[in-house]
Amino acid sequence: MTQPQLRQLCEEIRRFLVQNVSKTGGHLASNLGVVELTVALERVFDTAKDRLLFDVGHQSYVHKILTGRRDEFDNLRCYGGMAGFPKPAESEYDAFVAGHASSSVSTALGMARARTLRGEDYHVVALMGDGAMTGGLAYEGMNDAGESNEPLIVILNDNGMSITPNVGGIAKHLSVLRTRPGYFRLKKVFRTVTGKLPGGKAIYRFFHKIKERWKHMLLGSTLFDEMGFEYYGPVDGHDLERLEYMLQLVKSRKKPVLLHVITQKGKGYVPAENSPDVFHGIGAFDPESGKTPQTAHLPSFSETFGKTLCQIAEEEPRVCAITAAMVNGTGLAEFSQKFPDRCFDVGIAEGHAVSMAGGLAIQGMIPVVAVYSTFLQRAYDMILQDVAMQDLHVVFAVDRAGLVGEDGETHHGVFDVSFLRSVPHMQVLCPANQAELEEMLRKAIFEMKGPVAVRYPRGCDGAYGALPESPVLREGSHITMIGYGKLINNLLEAAELLKEQGIEAEVIKLPSVKPLDMATIAASVRKTGHLLIAEEAVCIGCAAKEIAAQLRLAGIIVPNRLINIPDRFVTHGSIARLYEELGLDAKSLCKAAMEVCAK
Amino acid sequence: MTQPQLRQLCEEIRRFLVQNVSKTGGHLASNLGVVELTVALERVFDTAKDRLLFDVGHQSYVHKILTGRRDEFDNLRCYGGMAGFPKPAESEYDAFVAGHASSSVSTALGMARARTLRGEDYHVVALMGDGAMTGGLAYEGMNDAGESNEPLIVILNDNGMSITPNVGGIAKHLSVLRTRPGYFRLKKVFRTVTGKLPGGKAIYRFFHKIKERWKHMLLGSTLFDEMGFEYYGPVDGHDLERLEYMLQLVKSRKKPVLLHVITQKGKGYVPAENSPDVFHGIGAFDPESGKTPQTAHLPSFSETFGKTLCQIAEEEPRVCAITAAMVNGTGLAEFSQKFPDRCFDVGIAEGHAVSMAGGLAIQGMIPVVAVYSTFLQRAYDMILQDVAMQDLHVVFAVDRAGLVGEDGETHHGVFDVSFLRSVPHMQVLCPANQAELEEMLRKAIFEMKGPVAVRYPRGCDGAYGALPESPVLREGSHITMIGYGKLINNLLEAAELLKEQGIEAEVIKLPSVKPLDMATIAASVRKTGHLLIAEEAVCIGCAAKEIAAQLRLAGIIVPNRLINIPDRFVTHGSIARLYEELGLDAKSLCKAAMEVCAK
Repeated sequence: MTQPQLRQLCEEIRRFLVQNVSKTGGHLASNLGVVELTVALERVFDTAKDRLLFDVGHQSYVHKILTGRRDEFDNLRCYGGMAGFPKPAESEYDAFVAGHASSSVSTALGMARARTLRGEDYHVVALMGDGAMTGGLAYEGMNDAGESNEPLIVILNDNGMSITPNVGGIAKHLSVLRTRPGYFRLKKVFRTVTGKLPGGKAIYRFFHKIKERWKHMLLGSTLFDEMGFEYYGPVDGHDLERLEYMLQLVKSRKKPVLLHVITQKGKGYVPAENSPDVFHGIGAFDPESGKTPQTAHLPSFSETFGKTLCQIAEEEPRVCAITAAMVNGTGLAEFSQKFPDRCFDVGIAEGHAVSMAGGLAIQGMIPVVAVYSTFLQRAYDMILQDVAMQDLHVVFAVDRAGLVGEDGETHHGVFDVSFLRSVPHMQVLCPANQAELEEMLRKAIFEMKGPVAVRYPRGCDGAYGALPESPVLREGSHITMIGYGKLINNLLEAAELLKEQGIEAEVIKLPSVKPLDMATIAASVRKTGHLLIAEEAVCIGCAAKEIAAQLRLAGIIVPNRLINIPDRFVTHGSIARLYEELGLDAKSLCKAAMEVCAK
Repeated sequence: MTQPQLRQLCEEIRRFLVQNVSKTGGHLASNLGVVELTVALERVFDTAKDRLLFDVGHQSYVHKILTGRRDEFDNLRCYGGMAGFPKPAESEYDAFVAGHASSSVSTALGMARARTLRGEDYHVVALMGDGAMTGGLAYEGMNDAGESNEPLIVILNDNGMSITPNVGGIAKHLSVLRTRPGYFRLKKVFRTVTGKLPGGKAIYRFFHKIKERWKHMLLGSTLFDEMGFEYYGPVDGHDLERLEYMLQLVKSRKKPVLLHVITQKGKGYVPAENSPDVFHGIGAFDPESGKTPQTAHLPSFSETFGKTLCQIAEEEPRVCAITAAMVNGTGLAEFSQKFPDRCFDVGIAEGHAVSMAGGLAIQGMIPVVAVYSTFLQRAYDMILQDVAMQDLHVVFAVDRAGLVGEDGETHHGVFDVSFLRSVPHMQVLCPANQAELEEMLRKAIFEMKGPVAVRYPRGCDGAYGALPESPVLREGSHITMIGYGKLINNLLEAAELLKEQGIEAEVIKLPSVKPLDMATIAASVRKTGHLLIAEEAVCIGCAAKEIAAQLRLAGIIVPNRLINIPDRFVTHGSIARLYEELGLDAKSLCKAAMEVCAK
């Protein structure tokens, strides 16, 4: 293909992305930013054999288009359709599952070492955003890779953002690199000249070395040099010809190299260029205007969390908020505006967020760590060691708890009930609607001591929106149905269906999965003689097993069913569809309850 | 105190340390290395008010001596005695619990931010080893702290080692800093001159700035500069006068500063200087010769693991080993000598170790991650995302599983049963002795697929050393007693005690806590009609609750007792003493079994 043809290809890809994502929803801005970069990567490397790793992975759409999955975009992120993240099970061109940030260098190094040990011959390329560079795992990987001398290529896709602009010393360092005076231009001229000569590459490399030495003198070395990487760049990530040239260059190096590529998030689609955060992950929208359809806006749990925390912070000056590069996602935008001194965005660094919260708490502040359930997995050890061990009053606002839908297996928040419950001193509250979230957040901050997690789901309230008067939401005499969080809606709906069958179900909503209100549960189960417990949590370490064990100890042994996430990973798709698969929808719950009652 | 008096104090502290640790055992080499540094810190800072954070924390003995706990050293690390790690509950001079590496900058930043927000006035100092600098958490903390501009002091205690010499790009970077030509000497002269003048400090700072700029030109900047820290050093960590001067200097700075201090592990005690790794954590020894008493050497589980892995690696070239700065501790010393290309020491970076293992596995190697149970907590997310989600064949050799004794609450391996079981596809094998460890390691590597953990305890075999013919170790008709791992010794002993009481106990040893051999368990419980399950694992997510739930599902409901680690942290002390506290010793188990049988 000629350069004009390639440019046209890029344009077509952009059009295709906007058209398709405007229908299905998905990650747009980051994919628009890597069109030229991905095209260049696919031309320089053979991604069926060479291993191309996407860090985080939502920027893999262009790669999917170019590796035979163009037609799958109609079903992007749908149940049974193509995943929004790389997945080897889906294509040999996908090297590794990705979803959480900062792991690509580690995985790449493992692959590179396997290649060398097995005497094989392929390239390993990790494509990592500058946001992911703020994660400690990236540093651990770079530290090891830099010394290993194992040939491997890290492409730093630098758009200055995670979902929102990046923070920390590293971000500053990158912005300094980005603006090295005259550097960009000089390089271009030099490359154009040498690129056309026979043996030009060797000449370029020779002068590159000399220039690098001068650069060190004049501009200081880069962080990457010091970690043992050969640093190349920065290079304009929308200049295809240059990109290919530089990729060929780094491909020829037999050591760890880093190519610094500057891209623009949302590139080529004006609405996304202007609001890259809005077009990071988005639902359906109008491709012409970039506007999302005007439906009645329902407040999300995240918004209610943010609004409530602002009110609380007015009342209590010791309250502060911590987020790991998710100011908007966790609903902290207003808080960060109103209380900039008390809002800490620490980068994609959940472990640090939690350890720092320990320091804040022991010196008299009340830190609230706002984090998605799936990402809190990164901080399990820090929760144990730096918070719970000293019984420090840290509040964890655990957003996206339970199934998250389209983002799929890497993002479902189905492990937190298990791993948080295993932590001594930890208390875990589970609001079922936003009124209750508000109430519980206040309680966690003002009344409780020690570590408290408040876990709430993605999205908006279900039908059940009122504040409960009692944990028994509905009285009945035939079966006790227990749940917590938003899933309580399905149980209430199931109770209606059961009523049609002549079965009166008692529905109990647990306000907390640790501790458990065993008195209420025991009284109800004694009365009804049948038990069903439903939860959006992995079956091992879940609340239901604890309830069953406690009931057994109390001598209450009745026919029962525990319905939860089985011991496997759950795929992507709408939450409603996943409920059906897992038997957590109202109809399935009704059926299960009837089976229990028949015993 | 005059300088000669201070030097004498340091000498006395060293003598005291050697004398005491030679009797009680404990961490010696790292404490000998920080005598002058700690004395200087206590003189420059008021550690009752200023907050001094020890990273990892086993180097806090000198601090404990100097803050009124000299007399407690007789009971160092004993049950009820003084802890081997910092503990605020023990003394107001201890700022924070520490035990796991790399967290001190995060905690310090939290404290510094709390101080600023609350308008208080104290200094925050994090004392971090260069080993801890290889952990990603340290980088996350530095990245945030560097940009925060929050006054805080990081002392980099650089002895070139974790327990063994450090690895990675960072270690290389530090060694370059250490040997900057002429730098050390020039600085000394300059400091001597300016230190004696009125206003000398301001002059020093002025020239320091100019010099730093030159240094950048000539030597390249440091990693720390680039993360936003003001870098001072390196300074000789055994020169008290210089240390105090530099500490006063960094104390006066109103921003994040890093002071690079060069110390020698084991300093001043020749046996420890020569073998700092041996004297890192040590039992009783002869203070004159430095020799440990000649008892019959019993091979430890770690040694058997290392020896077996060497044999396996001879047979199977795809096997490789990964350790996070624990080559000796995990028994990999011989492996690292014999198979240097297949042994990866990644630094204190458990997360990276696991993600890299994922990369190795998917490209056809069989990685074995050797790691202590407590430190594997750091990698919970990586186990889920980068190994289990793709069902990759990675073997986790989980050492120090269960109670570890004297190191106490930060080091007990009592959470792994819970957090590993919650991981889909994970299988968890539990050898009860070293013959079985060998067998199970072979099985995990040669026969099994997907992620497998083999968890084994600290120390040597108990009385039960044979390979089992059947999971039923002892037949009986009155009660089924179930356990796994080394705890099976206590159950067998309890069965003997029960026999004296006329109770015939059936003892079942579980080879695995995931999956569970429910058929054997069910058959036995049906026969005996009574059940006791004992485990060294935290009660939430433990195997016993799963067994109870499964039995209940199968309609087998009998009197039972589940004995495990309650929902709290377990203190330090000998394992035998902790068993008594937790009701896991033979006598307590016997008593509990009799109570069950009486029902």
